[in-house]
Amino acid sequence: MFDYTLLNRDSQTAARRGRFTTPHGAVELPAFMPVGTLGTVKGVPLELLERTGSQIILGNTYHLALRPGEKVVNKLGGLHKFCGWTKPILTDSGGFQIFSLAKIRKITEDGAVFRSHIDGSLVNLSPERAIEIQQQLGSDIAMVLDHVVALPNERNVLEDAMQRSVRWAKRCRDYQSDESREQQAIFGIVQGGLDATLRKSCAEQLAELDLPGYAVGGLSVGETPEEMYDALDFTVPFMPNNKPRYLMGVGRPEDILNGVERGIDLFDCVMPSRNGRNAMAFTKQGALRLRNVIHQCDTRPLEDDCPCPACKHSRGYLRHLFQSGEMLGPVLLTIHNITHYQRLMSDIRTSIVQNNFATFYKERMEAYAGET
Amino acid sequence: MFDYTLLNRDSQTAARRGRFTTPHGAVELPAFMPVGTLGTVKGVPLELLERTGSQIILGNTYHLALRPGEKVVNKLGGLHKFCGWTKPILTDSGGFQIFSLAKIRKITEDGAVFRSHIDGSLVNLSPERAIEIQQQLGSDIAMVLDHVVALPNERNVLEDAMQRSVRWAKRCRDYQSDESREQQAIFGIVQGGLDATLRKSCAEQLAELDLPGYAVGGLSVGETPEEMYDALDFTVPFMPNNKPRYLMGVGRPEDILNGVERGIDLFDCVMPSRNGRNAMAFTKQGALRLRNVIHQCDTRPLEDDCPCPACKHSRGYLRHLFQSGEMLGPVLLTIHNITHYQRLMSDIRTSIVQNNFATFYKERMEAYAGET
Repeated sequence: MFDYTLLNRDSQTAARRGRFTTPHGAVELPAFMPVGTLGTVKGVPLELLERTGSQIILGNTYHLALRPGEKVVNKLGGLHKFCGWTKPILTDSGGFQIFSLAKIRKITEDGAVFRSHIDGSLVNLSPERAIEIQQQLGSDIAMVLDHVVALPNERNVLEDAMQRSVRWAKRCRDYQSDESREQQAIFGIVQGGLDATLRKSCAEQLAELDLPGYAVGGLSVGETPEEMYDALDFTVPFMPNNKPRYLMGVGRPEDILNGVERGIDLFDCVMPSRNGRNAMAFTKQGALRLRNVIHQCDTRPLEDDCPCPACKHSRGYLRHLFQSGEMLGPVLLTIHNITHYQRLMSDIRTSIVQNNFATFYKERMEAYAGET
Repeated sequence: MFDYTLLNRDSQTAARRGRFTTPHGAVELPAFMPVGTLGTVKGVPLELLERTGSQIILGNTYHLALRPGEKVVNKLGGLHKFCGWTKPILTDSGGFQIFSLAKIRKITEDGAVFRSHIDGSLVNLSPERAIEIQQQLGSDIAMVLDHVVALPNERNVLEDAMQRSVRWAKRCRDYQSDESREQQAIFGIVQGGLDATLRKSCAEQLAELDLPGYAVGGLSVGETPEEMYDALDFTVPFMPNNKPRYLMGVGRPEDILNGVERGIDLFDCVMPSRNGRNAMAFTKQGALRLRNVIHQCDTRPLEDDCPCPACKHSRGYLRHLFQSGEMLGPVLLTIHNITHYQRLMSDIRTSIVQNNFATFYKERMEAYAGET
């Protein structure tokens, strides 16, 4: 069921065109996952989300477990039925949210204990429990529980967290029954901060678990883009070639181009939706800050060739929505930005098939440098 | 261009099935107009609004004149192009907003002077200016500037405001050029509070102006439904039979049924959108308060036979969106409620054609009494 196929390889870079199959259909790689934290990509009605070209969305285990609770989601038919999305869904494990959101957390070998950021109640999240919740949610891809730490950090802290993440990954794998393995793929997460030796060791240890896919985690937590690209340079080569590679929580279009160049297949990021809610539109000519008065009477769409619902309107109208605090502004700009990301991914896939990724990369990186 | 055709008359009530033509197409009557205050029905993407079955929307002159300003709307191609709605648009005159929103207002024979509720700036709105702004906006139907007063009120206050409204209506008509008369119909507004003599006098004086349509204004400002229905009983019979009749700012589905019964053709109200934003769903079995825990694990849609995007989801999911503060909740419930209203209007039109309105009225009034 969970099968990775390598379709094309770029001859000048590590970029690759692949396909990953799941019970809810195939994902053409490289792919970008919009973030649907609580069973909704914020503000986007389902059918408009479908038309952004998205193939797979991400749900947050931490958030869904707190609200409405995985049991409620399960009673309502599981995450697919719950939100109406019929294509693949990946759920994260909560590891990153424990790191970034939870208050008063304590992490032991057994797992994490933390206070909910919603109501302050005490929550336990072990590797086994993280998988159990994700089984209840019924996602196609579940992530192992990992121990995320801040960057920069001391080497022994990074190493401890990395080794714990490896042990937790094994516990996640062992917890999965044969039956659930048919329904849900578990992806491992490579940790190790910005330390090449730790990253290599983690990637190699996880490879031995023979999981259906692997992610690079613990990045985009404060390091510079160059540090992140370096980390990919010394991590990706040690990740299995015959499995999909997922760069978690990344990133800007420029980061995606750099990730693909280094052999990454899958991305997720809140940036298109969050920036959209804050009046920032992604375009091939760089970002547009729609609150800028320069857009007030501009009759042009955000992008001439964009098929999204926002691009049926003028920049002047979209600016007006934000200036007036109208909800439709965030709704439309989120849809536009996700559409922009998906059109980027589609163009990336085409450029790899045409063995033209290096040129494409150069052109797009230059164009994205603009801003209005 | 602006032509009213009476198609069917109910034999037991004053309900009537008509059609009003405008430069942007015909409106099948009775009809309901969703309120698109600032060039957007709050939160609803254009194509989803189109699919609610809405034939005509309302824009607020007061709001648009303050933000972004009618000149900006005009530069962006007029209100139709601005918001992308290609069907008819009616704009109100600002009279009601001066009454309900503006601070420090002074009303003289010349017009109204008030402070903007946005930035406190001093704004003048005369009858001529109200029409000038609406011409800049380019709506199909413009409303005359009227003098709205609170209810209950002293008879001499009601009479002064009514007589001024008549004089202002004449000034609005006289301000319109022959050319703009081809593009925009001006509707008169009958005032007079809950006083039968004043209402009759106002209706008759306005009828002499031979405007393309007439509205009942100054209702839904604090009186009981029964008082409002009484006001219709002693007002509508004196409004021209061969022109559309519009009940402004009304109302609940029950009010619409009662308006149609008394010969009203056109309605507008913020209720479906505002209540939708507050987690209240209209259904044929009465209102659903989605925050109620009874809906938590309910897998049913809001209405079995509703084709709207919200009804692709379970009540449990919709509740979750509101409980989690997700923007998609208000978006979906607004769409559902407007769809509900439009399906009601469609059913009303069918029942009149089938000369069955009285029975339909009774059934629906009983069903709407429910609430969950």
